[in-house]
Amino acid sequence: MNGNTFGRVFRVTTCGESYSGGFRKELDIPSCLYGGLMTIVDGVPAGIKLTADMIQEELNKRKPGQSPLDSPRLEKDLVYIFSGVMMDQMTTGAPVGIVIPNNDIENLHIGQYHDYQEAARPGHAEITYMKRYGQYNDWVGAGRASGRETVSRVAGGAVAKAILDREGIDVIAYTIESHGIKAKPITYEEAKANYRKNDINCPDLAVAPAMEKDILDVRKTGETCGGIIELLVHGLPVGLGEPCFDKLEATIAHGLMSIGAVKGIEVGAGFKVAEMVGSECNDEMYWDEETGRVRYYSNNAGGFLGGLSNGDEVRIRIAVKPTPTVDVVQRTVDCGSHKNVELSPITRRDASLLPRIYPVCEAMVRIAIVDALMQFKGYRNMEDLDPKYDQI
Amino acid sequence: MNGNTFGRVFRVTTCGESYSGGFRKELDIPSCLYGGLMTIVDGVPAGIKLTADMIQEELNKRKPGQSPLDSPRLEKDLVYIFSGVMMDQMTTGAPVGIVIPNNDIENLHIGQYHDYQEAARPGHAEITYMKRYGQYNDWVGAGRASGRETVSRVAGGAVAKAILDREGIDVIAYTIESHGIKAKPITYEEAKANYRKNDINCPDLAVAPAMEKDILDVRKTGETCGGIIELLVHGLPVGLGEPCFDKLEATIAHGLMSIGAVKGIEVGAGFKVAEMVGSECNDEMYWDEETGRVRYYSNNAGGFLGGLSNGDEVRIRIAVKPTPTVDVVQRTVDCGSHKNVELSPITRRDASLLPRIYPVCEAMVRIAIVDALMQFKGYRNMEDLDPKYDQI
Amino acid sequence: MNGNTFGRVFRVTTCGESYSGGFRKELDIPSCLYGGLMTIVDGVPAGIKLTADMIQEELNKRKPGQSPLDSPRLEKDLVYIFSGVMMDQMTTGAPVGIVIPNNDIENLHIGQYHDYQEAARPGHAEITYMKRYGQYNDWVGAGRASGRETVSRVAGGAVAKAILDREGIDVIAYTIESHGIKAKPITYEEAKANYRKNDINCPDLAVAPAMEKDILDVRKTGETCGGIIELLVHGLPVGLGEPCFDKLEATIAHGLMSIGAVKGIEVGAGFKVAEMVGSECNDEMYWDEETGRVRYYSNNAGGFLGGLSNGDEVRIRIAVKPTPTVDVVQRTVDCGSHKNVELSPITRRDASLLPRIYPVCEAMVRIAIVDALMQFKGYRNMEDLDPKYDQI
Amino acid sequence: MNGNTFGRVFRVTTCGESYSGGFRKELDIPSCLYGGLMTIVDGVPAGIKLTADMIQEELNKRKPGQSPLDSPRLEKDLVYIFSGVMMDQMTTGAPVGIVIPNNDIENLHIGQYHDYQEAARPGHAEITYMKRYGQYNDWVGAGRASGRETVSRVAGGAVAKAILDREGIDVIAYTIESHGIKAKPITYEEAKANYRKNDINCPDLAVAPAMEKDILDVRKTGETCGGIIELLVHGLPVGLGEPCFDKLEATIAHGLMSIGAVKGIEVGAGFKVAEMVGSECNDEMYWDEETGRVRYYSNNAGGFLGGLSNGDEVRIRIAVKPTPTVDVVQRTVDCGSHKNVELSPITRRDASLLPRIYPVCEAMVRIAIVDALMQFKGYRNMEDLDPKYDQI
Repeated sequence: MNGNTFGRVFRVTTCGESYSGGFRKELDIPSCLYGGLMTIVDGVPAGIKLTADMIQEELNKRKPGQSPLDSPRLEKDLVYIFSGVMMDQMTTGAPVGIVIPNNDIENLHIGQYHDYQEAARPGHAEITYMKRYGQYNDWVGAGRASGRETVSRVAGGAVAKAILDREGIDVIAYTIESHGIKAKPITYEEAKANYRKNDINCPDLAVAPAMEKDILDVRKTGETCGGIIELLVHGLPVGLGEPCFDKLEATIAHGLMSIGAVKGIEVGAGFKVAEMVGSECNDEMYWDEETGRVRYYSNNAGGFLGGLSNGDEVRIRIAVKPTPTVDVVQRTVDCGSHKNVELSPITRRDASLLPRIYPVCEAMVRIAIVDALMQFKGYRNMEDLDPKYDQI
Repeated sequence: MNGNTFGRVFRVTTCGESYSGGFRKELDIPSCLYGGLMTIVDGVPAGIKLTADMIQEELNKRKPGQSPLDSPRLEKDLVYIFSGVMMDQMTTGAPVGIVIPNNDIENLHIGQYHDYQEAARPGHAEITYMKRYGQYNDWVGAGRASGRETVSRVAGGAVAKAILDREGIDVIAYTIESHGIKAKPITYEEAKANYRKNDINCPDLAVAPAMEKDILDVRKTGETCGGIIELLVHGLPVGLGEPCFDKLEATIAHGLMSIGAVKGIEVGAGFKVAEMVGSECNDEMYWDEETGRVRYYSNNAGGFLGGLSNGDEVRIRIAVKPTPTVDVVQRTVDCGSHKNVELSPITRRDASLLPRIYPVCEAMVRIAIVDALMQFKGYRNMEDLDPKYDQI
Repeated sequence: MNGNTFGRVFRVTTCGESYSGGFRKELDIPSCLYGGLMTIVDGVPAGIKLTADMIQEELNKRKPGQSPLDSPRLEKDLVYIFSGVMMDQMTTGAPVGIVIPNNDIENLHIGQYHDYQEAARPGHAEITYMKRYGQYNDWVGAGRASGRETVSRVAGGAVAKAILDREGIDVIAYTIESHGIKAKPITYEEAKANYRKNDINCPDLAVAPAMEKDILDVRKTGETCGGIIELLVHGLPVGLGEPCFDKLEATIAHGLMSIGAVKGIEVGAGFKVAEMVGSECNDEMYWDEETGRVRYYSNNAGGFLGGLSNGDEVRIRIAVKPTPTVDVVQRTVDCGSHKNVELSPITRRDASLLPRIYPVCEAMVRIAIVDALMQFKGYRNMEDLDPKYDQI
Repeated sequence: MNGNTFGRVFRVTTCGESYSGGFRKELDIPSCLYGGLMTIVDGVPAGIKLTADMIQEELNKRKPGQSPLDSPRLEKDLVYIFSGVMMDQMTTGAPVGIVIPNNDIENLHIGQYHDYQEAARPGHAEITYMKRYGQYNDWVGAGRASGRETVSRVAGGAVAKAILDREGIDVIAYTIESHGIKAKPITYEEAKANYRKNDINCPDLAVAPAMEKDILDVRKTGETCGGIIELLVHGLPVGLGEPCFDKLEATIAHGLMSIGAVKGIEVGAGFKVAEMVGSECNDEMYWDEETGRVRYYSNNAGGFLGGLSNGDEVRIRIAVKPTPTVDVVQRTVDCGSHKNVELSPITRRDASLLPRIYPVCEAMVRIAIVDALMQFKGYRNMEDLDPKYDQI
């Protein structure tokens, strides 16, 4: 595979697997160097405040074991900045290197997974990986196709967030539907106020308890369930994105659809446009004297016109499939023997991905935005340099 | 803008605007050299049969004025291959250069458009372009944000099609919903048999006449309407795509979302996964003795697992918004004077984009697939070389 | 091949061959659409003055048949801007599309070349192309490996020049050695004053006549000869280039080494550094009160430190091999029959590439610089927008 | 900066600085996680044997303190593979993550460097970095402009070597000139036999002692000196590289020129072509019955025709400047105060870069070759998969 970089000038490159390093337990090296996730963020302007704690805060949002809805896997996901930051404070303009060692591998029983090596789990990537990489495929914990890969995306997104914070651009994601239970429409203000007040990250506080109870009920049956995440972006300047193929709307779709469980994306009115007529779908405009800006009467466009940001709120929804790991007998094929087999239940899993996938969605959108921003404004203009250096 | 290339090793680069060259009518140069669309397709293997007619055939599908549903604009969209093909037959391995001169510009009255230069049309890109490019923005016929830009995408897609045809990979797109009128579920066989039997390209022949009549009714009111296009890919090998960011599912989403009117994408079960439990969503597998292959009992995944092609049929749906150009008075802002204005009706338009957008969708999917295929198989293995040259 | 794009955000994509379209003489299409060269320049900021004449002026510098030193091939190399420019004057921010039809193909006798199809000419690319593309290789006039490919580079470089002119950055190239005859060291002022005063483009006016006479003497023997081109860049701001791999020094080397006949590059003191000690090679610095800037006592670094521009004059020299087409019997292999053969003399050729290669060198350096500049400054800051559009 | 990735489909991304993490000595984290170098190699095919020892072996070649000619800095440069390899043996197709912690930072006295923060050292990159990154520039040990950055290149090159070894492609680099003392011409066989028999890595064993003695003499005077490295590539297949800009000759030049101290590159006859006539420069060919291949009577082309590999030995020479750190008083500017100052001697340095730069040169050439190879052959065809997986 060669697609582990996202972005053109603000570029996030990642590597790492679920249990990489687990087989090194016998080696005479520090366990924190057995293996893990890595992220290199290139194109970071100098002079951005960035600390390990700022990245850790984002990682903690997707850490398992935070609520009864999650997998009980015990990963601390401790983050270390290896490069690109001076005095634990400010970026230097050099690429930021981030390391997150695997630690739960201490308890890894490779045998536990080995049994399933060639019986492809339905809904999982291993069938396509096995075809592609054959006997060399990393079958421990799903390797690169594991959700754990998203740790390094979140680390990269945290660097993007540090830049966006300085520009006053806010990206948030939250649950609006879980297993068919829908939240009411949410404003940015409501979302900001309430979206982290419950385990399901749903800002509709009236509906959240029902979503949570339902997920626990689903879990009891050995099942998992899906839902919908909504993303809002506030404060985006007008005109970001690079036509005709790298419109911001398209690069964001690219980023979001690259997340394992995402099966659909819609922007603004989304699939509802299929039922509309033109004047209903078009967002009329007016001159807002107060702000001295063009404003829109509606936002069916979801914050984009011609694929570029139009200054209005960006609103995106994504469909998240149920966790494919279920405690239910399923029919499949042993890819080694070409025999039909039944797959016994597997236990450790998230009953729903919703509580933990939202920081990954935020990360991908942030990276896409910063990439567009850097092309628009350039490195020089993201920095706040002492003028004495201009005379060099 | 700098996003006019799509693909990593099979790369389609385009340029051109709706009326570029229209202002050159007085010059002493051949009118076919006034201006137009261009496409350079890099990464084309040698030995692919490619003729101007093959490209023309694709272009003709999106040509306006083919049915009462379309814009009456008279563009011949004649295509010329400038390079990369020998004897009008076979690719040489060099980049394929394609030129499509604008010809309707003969009749262009620039004044017709000039009046609207600074009053941003609702639903159109000109507001974002005006912000970004200011007084230099190409305001004639929407410039680069015009649907006419997609001509060069279709030209690039036709080159991809020539490669896919050799590999037995078929990509088709057709209408499944128009202004709320829905087709029944369509199999690949039904689609192949019927999808070009009517102006709306809907393979559900029972429903198509209602769709067409409805669009004509909508047009009479000065309005336009949206719908849903479905894409099917048949014959895709297992394992295409480059994790973790350039999974084929993600690059296809990128390509489709870069088309102006697309506001949503879903793959397989799409947004329905939000209501499912895990065992319902997972596609169970079996060993098919007849074909000697793994097969699936269902296809909620829409042909992808872990974002790579899984060998099953790829099924994607996209939401297409109504043409934003309507014959209805709309409120907007004159961006020069910052005054609120009402925009008078504009006449020439497609009542629905559905009849003409499907070849653009096919083109983007084909380009993404060939790009993945070339990375997987390499140039050397796409070619069918006489072995005598191996000894060089 | 897939390497026909140069640059990351200012990107020049080219296609076209020496005689593409020559086989279309029988077709019922305008001869200017038979075939030719194309260039798409993406990432051009809006508001740059760019006319066809500005590009033509650069193309004319490399046009054959300008002096007794050149090939007598009659190519008019007429350039047409297809897109990205409004009113024949100003760029719009859209990609600039450029078309240069082949015209000498009217007189093409394909048979003339056909005889040599499989006998690989020494010093030419056809042996490697034949291996790679086999029976599909474009054997007419060397196809993509022909020097004619550089026409489209020069067209792209002319767009870069339009941007650099606005920034006060000047790139010039000239001959400093021809077939062992060396010019004296040349200052920027001398170069500007004199470098186009003779056919060999050598600003040492005392030596130029000897160079020219020598080339004519060499030509009489059926031979060709090589030389050295020097490039100077004036006015470059400090700090351009992207470490650690895309330092400006490295991307310029990439661009120059991609020109067919170039076999060596040196920057500043170049290969002489091999004989130096550290304090001799290091360029000491002082504060220049007059300009309020850091200046250097010497320029062994050739204008780069750490691979970034250091504000001093950039000085680069490149070795240009003799034209490989000679009027001398040479031993080679017929790649079809695997027989040893002797190749009969071929006539049409440049006795030296020096008079015509310098605009190609200038073009590649300009493209690399603009690419670095755009990343540094961003699109927004290359434009000169009316502030009224900021309020959109 | 955003140029920290090299390669298009085989992509090496690096980060890390000389002393990153040195300021973390007080933190309660393992010292091996303070900071260091990182490399992510994307595009590695599955099924390549790769161990930490194989990478360590390459790193050890550039490790300081190996001979009296080097800097006495004590860096162990211990390498850890974080991802992409199963069971410490075989690549999985996932990106390979490599971590090399800084360890010498235990002894770092930041104050030692702090004094020189704003007085730019002649010949060093800090003047350009200071201009670009201002007060945020990493001034400890030259940050990203330090030669220590090359550790992560060598790590990436070691992964490329693992692939090339399987293909029978050998890349070696050695000294042919040091401070004006020249070695005799070296054949591949001589180079292989002798190039690591002395500290200067010169396979001309008769001349090497004089080179070494000279460097020690130069060191005694507080000076440093430069030289020339030659690279040979054996076993390269015909036709690698992607015209017209990414010819292998050009991407190799890009890679080599991106190494800090390199000021010149020549291929084959190099700058000598400037004195040649065509028939002298052209390499005539013959059919070699024994090998059943085309062979060349000479190799002035240095292994490339049309920029693609021609099957002959690749021979490249690069000019390496003297280490800029010298123990001699030099004039410069304090960039904070804009005052002229004299810079006092600095002690820790390599008297010549030749003994340690050759593995970096090998690494860059290897990466460029594997990148071309992967595009040519594709992922699928670099792997050796058990056919049972084909039936998935």
